[in-house]
Amino acid sequence: MRLVTYSPNDPSDPNAAGDTAAHLGAQLGERVIDLAALAAAAGTELPGDLLSFIQAGQPALDTARALLAEDAAAGWPPAAVHALGDLRLRAPLRPGKIIGVGLNYVEHVEESSRTLDTDRELPDRPVLFSKPATAVTGPGHPILHNADLTKQLDWECELAVVIGRKAFRVTEQDAWDHVFGYSIINDISARDQRRSGQWFFSKGQDSYAPFGPAVLTADEIADPHDLELGLKVNGETKQHSNTRHMLFRIPRLIADISSGVTLEPGDVIATGSPSGVGAGLVPPQFLQPGDLVEATIQHLGTLANPVQDAR
Amino acid sequence: MRLVTYSPNDPSDPNAAGDTAAHLGAQLGERVIDLAALAAAAGTELPGDLLSFIQAGQPALDTARALLAEDAAAGWPPAAVHALGDLRLRAPLRPGKIIGVGLNYVEHVEESSRTLDTDRELPDRPVLFSKPATAVTGPGHPILHNADLTKQLDWECELAVVIGRKAFRVTEQDAWDHVFGYSIINDISARDQRRSGQWFFSKGQDSYAPFGPAVLTADEIADPHDLELGLKVNGETKQHSNTRHMLFRIPRLIADISSGVTLEPGDVIATGSPSGVGAGLVPPQFLQPGDLVEATIQHLGTLANPVQDAR
Repeated sequence: MRLVTYSPNDPSDPNAAGDTAAHLGAQLGERVIDLAALAAAAGTELPGDLLSFIQAGQPALDTARALLAEDAAAGWPPAAVHALGDLRLRAPLRPGKIIGVGLNYVEHVEESSRTLDTDRELPDRPVLFSKPATAVTGPGHPILHNADLTKQLDWECELAVVIGRKAFRVTEQDAWDHVFGYSIINDISARDQRRSGQWFFSKGQDSYAPFGPAVLTADEIADPHDLELGLKVNGETKQHSNTRHMLFRIPRLIADISSGVTLEPGDVIATGSPSGVGAGLVPPQFLQPGDLVEATIQHLGTLANPVQDAR
Repeated sequence: MRLVTYSPNDPSDPNAAGDTAAHLGAQLGERVIDLAALAAAAGTELPGDLLSFIQAGQPALDTARALLAEDAAAGWPPAAVHALGDLRLRAPLRPGKIIGVGLNYVEHVEESSRTLDTDRELPDRPVLFSKPATAVTGPGHPILHNADLTKQLDWECELAVVIGRKAFRVTEQDAWDHVFGYSIINDISARDQRRSGQWFFSKGQDSYAPFGPAVLTADEIADPHDLELGLKVNGETKQHSNTRHMLFRIPRLIADISSGVTLEPGDVIATGSPSGVGAGLVPPQFLQPGDLVEATIQHLGTLANPVQDAR
């Protein structure tokens, strides 16, 4: 199931009718079905937001799947069915925490050691950091460029793992049971705002975690370690790799993080960036107001965000 | 006003009657008044938890103050008044984010450069990191010691600033308007779990943010930069300083963080540790199961936590 969070009307459209609340929908091609409305019409219930839907677990997934089945489509109330193009997508949810993984693709370790003062050797344990929920922004929403704060705004296309079930001290073998689904995070960094080496302020500012455009449930991805991923700036390819090149794979990341930190439903792991970040190019290139950044992962879609002057 | 979050019955007491839900109370000496119950008896309303109370802003504070006034005490319903000793205190709230400040006391910068590979020079900007909400634990609750993960579990007594009003690009002059109150955070670290220098996993594990025992509203602290603070392990003083020795003071921290990161009501800034951490002692000392750690800040009280074997 491909889940999106949306507002029925685009608030930037002065002619829109005004329902700007967030709704949870299932995307079927170019249509989006409002899950709570669909359930209500069928005399049952589904949560109206993705975090509650994830917390509701397997029964909510089963209900949604039954209601969305092709042979049920004749009974869908017209008011619950939208054309994708009429909607404004939002970030899928506001995570309790976003844990990022640094230096998790071999070639990115090498380019970082040349340009970002990080170690040349491969890390022997996952390099973990975090971004706050206030950093999240949705597809199409602007990445804020404050030239008073940074001259080195950079991109990183990353596979996002959305946690489905609470995980504490989970083994690699059991880790997959705790994955709800997958999405894209663009791990934006102001490279010149590291503070005594700590990444929080360089990676944690508002709008530095574009997230979306959808969450695909885990059953729809045959192998999350065989996904092409890449990123373009103004149509020009900057990153291109495959998730098979991750140094620490998803089960290892979940086992490692949950050895000490409880992962909760809706938490997100941003699994690291391949090479091709702006700081690693010769000469370095960074984002400027007016740029368009498009992060694409196979099956998951494209997360596109304009860069906006926000001084 | 001194605000506490509590369960009426201690769940560790097998004879307790069983109300283990969290309540918001105002502490008056040895008594704790249930604010929602007090308001209901007076025909008005107050939120039942501290985060909602903070979000409700000045009107909620005004209502609570009026209801708690001495001349109103005769009308307090007995069921809303508890003896402090009968309650189990919890962490005051679950923050949306906890932003920590590293290396914010001069003598701690010096001891850290000797023992923790940090720079010897004073930072020219606040060194920011974060701890997730899952790291929070309450007064009296155990700090988890997992000897399979760490041999260097360390303490840091810190003044916690609780944000009252949303702050984005706030000046130092206006910063105080965004402070709701103050508390204590013990910034626990597994020194040997830094990952390529990043502090998130060393400082972000479950129970590594003891928080409490209360939140004192800002009006009760004449000068937050003139508070004695210190920490004992098993009764022996390890840290002793005064908040006047902070390198970057609260208005600067709020202005700096909010230059890029929105602070929301209930967010917490842990303003940094004075010297005397275990890693800086000669020879180094670290926490062991069975230890009792007591972090004390003038006017705010003592946050005491036992260290528990959690393998």
